[in-house]
Amino acid sequence: MSSIFTKIINGEITAYKIAEDDDFIAFLDAMPLVKGHTLVVPKKEVDLIFDLESEAYKNLWSFAQEVAKKVKDAVPCVRVGVAVVGLEVPHAHIHLIPLNKVEDMNFKNERLKLSVEEYTEIQNSIINS
Amino acid sequence: MSSIFTKIINGEITAYKIAEDDDFIAFLDAMPLVKGHTLVVPKKEVDLIFDLESEAYKNLWSFAQEVAKKVKDAVPCVRVGVAVVGLEVPHAHIHLIPLNKVEDMNFKNERLKLSVEEYTEIQNSIINS
Repeated sequence: MSSIFTKIINGEITAYKIAEDDDFIAFLDAMPLVKGHTLVVPKKEVDLIFDLESEAYKNLWSFAQEVAKKVKDAVPCVRVGVAVVGLEVPHAHIHLIPLNKVEDMNFKNERLKLSVEEYTEIQNSIINS
Repeated sequence: MSSIFTKIINGEITAYKIAEDDDFIAFLDAMPLVKGHTLVVPKKEVDLIFDLESEAYKNLWSFAQEVAKKVKDAVPCVRVGVAVVGLEVPHAHIHLIPLNKVEDMNFKNERLKLSVEEYTEIQNSIINS
């Protein structure tokens, strides 16, 4: 069965897309820890990020670097943090999390519930930054 | 003033070193969240990881990939997680954290206090994995 991220990549599930090329996609996390929490995902469905072939792995991180700079420019924060956890969805993904304090990266925190209007506003501000 | 990581790189502070080349170094975190918690650091003292020049940035992640595979082989865990936070030491660093549950990556958790013997055993098991 396809992962939830593959369904997003294939357009079967909608997401607030930030960036996309032939190999990678970035979109807003549907259950964000903070506003601007973004996921960066390789289109190839691999479980462990460290199992990606060397070039694909490096290119994924380069793609994430570009997205992170746009998130930083768009979302008020001290810096953009990075996390790879992957205990829930077996399709490698990088969390980019606008941080103001270390607690912002606690995955046990309650997730934000945003409106379509809020998601769309954040999406547009990142895309246009 | 040099960062604490630059002092480790220069040998002014000792650390349990895992790997090193001309540009990067990896060593055990002195205040680990879990056993095997490892830091990967560029020798160039830059605050934000995303400000590294593109090639250096990709090479840092490649270096971290090799270290993470060794940590995974040496330390019992479900997978090796990744975190970049950087709110405390203004010298870019990647946390590699052996994860068994999502709570293992909460930076507000109490840190382990290990003996020299325990650190040395973990260090050797990662180096030799």
